[in-house]
Amino acid sequence: MHDELLIELQQTIEQQIPMCASMGIHVHGDGETGLVLRAPLDRNRNRQQTAFAGSLNALCTVAGWGMVYLITRRDGNFGDIVIRRSSIKYLRPVDSEQILATCAPVAQPDLDHFLEMLRSKGQAKLELRAEVLCDGDLAVAFSGSYVVLGT
Amino acid sequence: MHDELLIELQQTIEQQIPMCASMGIHVHGDGETGLVLRAPLDRNRNRQQTAFAGSLNALCTVAGWGMVYLITRRDGNFGDIVIRRSSIKYLRPVDSEQILATCAPVAQPDLDHFLEMLRSKGQAKLELRAEVLCDGDLAVAFSGSYVVLGT
Repeated sequence: MHDELLIELQQTIEQQIPMCASMGIHVHGDGETGLVLRAPLDRNRNRQQTAFAGSLNALCTVAGWGMVYLITRRDGNFGDIVIRRSSIKYLRPVDSEQILATCAPVAQPDLDHFLEMLRSKGQAKLELRAEVLCDGDLAVAFSGSYVVLGT
Repeated sequence: MHDELLIELQQTIEQQIPMCASMGIHVHGDGETGLVLRAPLDRNRNRQQTAFAGSLNALCTVAGWGMVYLITRRDGNFGDIVIRRSSIKYLRPVDSEQILATCAPVAQPDLDHFLEMLRSKGQAKLELRAEVLCDGDLAVAFSGSYVVLGT
């Protein structure tokens, strides 16, 4: 994780959102497959010693938030990012020691439209998808709608 | 909170799900309006000093889980309760010192059907709704689908 913006995202998450620090959320990496956040199972477990649904949702929510953070900051926009709605499917238990949530990259036409709206209207919406795999299988499928109120 | 089962629910949540303890989730009460859980804003805040979306979702998720816990235990069933999917709308920021999530009671016909399925098939599904109010306005609307694998 060498990108300065990824380090800034990590600091923002852990210093400004106490529950992200409690969950142990870390920016794992950002690449072609998307933005990856991780959290340890140990402190995010449920009664069955698998990942707590609330933690899985929070990790995906922050992965999407982080993706919007990177997109907007790289475009020179420092507006507030809020999530308006989300839906999530818990398809199988997650029992890996580290829980990894990946927010998929945004398709270029959608990205162009989003940035154009943000620049011209000062507000724009982005639909994002995130997922958690466990042993190679899709365990969690998340989609969220984020809004940026530009500066 | 005098009901022994509510005390058991509180202990289960805080002793067996570390993030619920970190969030400071407490069983606030159970009555005609539903099961109410609360958590302090302070440790569940975001960058804007309002409630973190991940915490709001977790609180609603656990409120629904707790409702199924009460329903099944009161019927003598001690099976595992899991959430299969949920959706949530964040309609306005929550800035009250205590965040209260209320899981609405289950209509009697739905409850009868659920318990009948659980007794006869050993498995049953329940759709639940929870909400968070702030200053009297609906701030968060949550719906979740829970499955009980009976014993």
